[in-house]
Amino acid sequence: MADVAARAGVSVTTVSHVLNEVPGKRISPETRDRVRLAAEELGYVLNGIARSLRTRRSHVIAMIDDEITITPHAFGIIQGAQETASKLGWLLVHVNTGVDRSSELAEINALRQRQVDGFLYARMYHRQVELPEVLDGLPTVLVDGTCPNPAISSVVPDEFDGARTAVAELIRHGHRQIGLINNVDDIPAAVGRLAGYRSVLDEAGIGYREDFVVRGISDARGGYHSAGALLDLDDPPRAIFCFNDRVAMGSYHAARERGLRIPEDVSFVGFDNQVNVADGLFPGLTTVALPHYEMGAWGVRTLVEQIERPELHTPTQVSLACPLIVRESITAPAGRGQGASGTNDDPIGLEAGDVPAVRPLRALP
Amino acid sequence: MADVAARAGVSVTTVSHVLNEVPGKRISPETRDRVRLAAEELGYVLNGIARSLRTRRSHVIAMIDDEITITPHAFGIIQGAQETASKLGWLLVHVNTGVDRSSELAEINALRQRQVDGFLYARMYHRQVELPEVLDGLPTVLVDGTCPNPAISSVVPDEFDGARTAVAELIRHGHRQIGLINNVDDIPAAVGRLAGYRSVLDEAGIGYREDFVVRGISDARGGYHSAGALLDLDDPPRAIFCFNDRVAMGSYHAARERGLRIPEDVSFVGFDNQVNVADGLFPGLTTVALPHYEMGAWGVRTLVEQIERPELHTPTQVSLACPLIVRESITAPAGRGQGASGTNDDPIGLEAGDVPAVRPLRALP
Repeated sequence: MADVAARAGVSVTTVSHVLNEVPGKRISPETRDRVRLAAEELGYVLNGIARSLRTRRSHVIAMIDDEITITPHAFGIIQGAQETASKLGWLLVHVNTGVDRSSELAEINALRQRQVDGFLYARMYHRQVELPEVLDGLPTVLVDGTCPNPAISSVVPDEFDGARTAVAELIRHGHRQIGLINNVDDIPAAVGRLAGYRSVLDEAGIGYREDFVVRGISDARGGYHSAGALLDLDDPPRAIFCFNDRVAMGSYHAARERGLRIPEDVSFVGFDNQVNVADGLFPGLTTVALPHYEMGAWGVRTLVEQIERPELHTPTQVSLACPLIVRESITAPAGRGQGASGTNDDPIGLEAGDVPAVRPLRALP
Repeated sequence: MADVAARAGVSVTTVSHVLNEVPGKRISPETRDRVRLAAEELGYVLNGIARSLRTRRSHVIAMIDDEITITPHAFGIIQGAQETASKLGWLLVHVNTGVDRSSELAEINALRQRQVDGFLYARMYHRQVELPEVLDGLPTVLVDGTCPNPAISSVVPDEFDGARTAVAELIRHGHRQIGLINNVDDIPAAVGRLAGYRSVLDEAGIGYREDFVVRGISDARGGYHSAGALLDLDDPPRAIFCFNDRVAMGSYHAARERGLRIPEDVSFVGFDNQVNVADGLFPGLTTVALPHYEMGAWGVRTLVEQIERPELHTPTQVSLACPLIVRESITAPAGRGQGASGTNDDPIGLEAGDVPAVRPLRALP
């Protein structure tokens, strides 16, 4: 700092005031510029640790995840969080603790020792979680999960609405024989998507058929078996809503093995918009996107507000929409005309080709 | 700290010595245990920032990546780095700076201000890079890249060897008409894999055919077009080495459109072992794995050594093997018997089913 002062021709105190942005000091803009230029030329780096001790704020937030980094479809959370933190002038550091709770505790303690100002606690898929006790009383926002504590802000995808969007797109094309391949686990995504599927069928006056709903492992091989079971029914579905895009990947293979064309003989809609899967299938898979990027961004904005303006912060639990991503895996069922038809007797009042019109459904009960 | 001292019945100085692990102090193991227990019961957290100022070492390393978090197949680097740092007692924080060099500079400066002890500079795919000047003189290890500065340790996949492993596996099954779908860019992976392909063909006495090598975009749709071009030749290849697993995904579709069975009519081998792609194809794709986890782990070990024992550290540039992952996409070409045969006239001396025997190839020139 003495070198910077000498080069700028000012006192060390002035350098300190300028570089540490100490408020209320009368220093001319010219002097400030001279000090900053001298610091830059000398490669001077502020001692952030010393500054943190003084301000008691590190401007660092940490994102703790269990397995997002090994879950290719969830990396958007990291990206949304990083880009938002960067825009707000905060440093976001990301620590992957794995699923081992004891290593998680050690990592969180290590971060607390370094005066991290707050935590984004992110999960690899939407679920109910208990926050580790070590976070009690620290600014914390939960991403892709909900917890019983109403003081914790959290964000999840709107599973119910996403399923409604997917199934409504099939109905809009004229489909009425619509199967569902659901997940086997009792997780919010499985519960919410089934409820969304049923509610849209109901509104369209399509009866719910037990035999059209199967549950299986949610990967390509699970999807292959589940779709096979549906397609081998005597009166099989003409369209299938797949729990995720990997399930659709296996379902495509099951359909082709049976000599069925996609989408002419059977239409598909997925969930996730997983890169390299949804866009790598032939034909490209129409699906709904999980709002990973948006959840990461929302989490950082909410956490920073909580740290900087605690008096304004009200804990909120929100769910974000899953938008429709249109590719080529849906067409009208044979016998109902070609292409995106189904307008004439559209049972839920949506226009063909009018994709955004799916949105009003979200306002329905 | 006074509370901990009172609870443990020792002086504040003793608490400080124990919790800060000050060397050379005569404190009995019983007292140390008592202090630690009291600290734990009181939820006492060391002030890591104050400690860093004293020791001038933060025990934090930072991993800077450009786009790994948006590159599903490279997340293993993060996982390998995190788990290794954790084992060594270091905190690894991960910052994704995107491809924008100015935001990268800002993030690295922010980390320097916080006294991070060293940097892992990781790239989303193997390439030659220039390290940002701001890292000059700081302990830095490059992951999945090489740079012209011999003082920088770096680790990359052995592209040449990986390609040899993949093509040798085809030859071991009796294939001699082997196509290559290469990447269009002038990157180390494209150069190395072509060289590996040529060297194995050469050793097996198989002539190189220009018409069997095509270059295309390295995703499913690019692979579909590239494979179509190869399969439409008058005398098409009976096996195809794909630049990556996504290319194989599209190639499968091109083969099936032509009524070809996989692997009976055409065999495939990929590269990457990308989760949800290689294991999601029907049949599962035999491929070679990029050593992402191992590169991340090597990077952290090397960086920590460089920080803790600079006198022992010698900069090294290494490449790691890409191991064969056997699934079901390769069989003997029709007319050469069924299954993994090709032993009788195996041109490069490998035994059928003897997968590890591919390894000695790595020692060849």
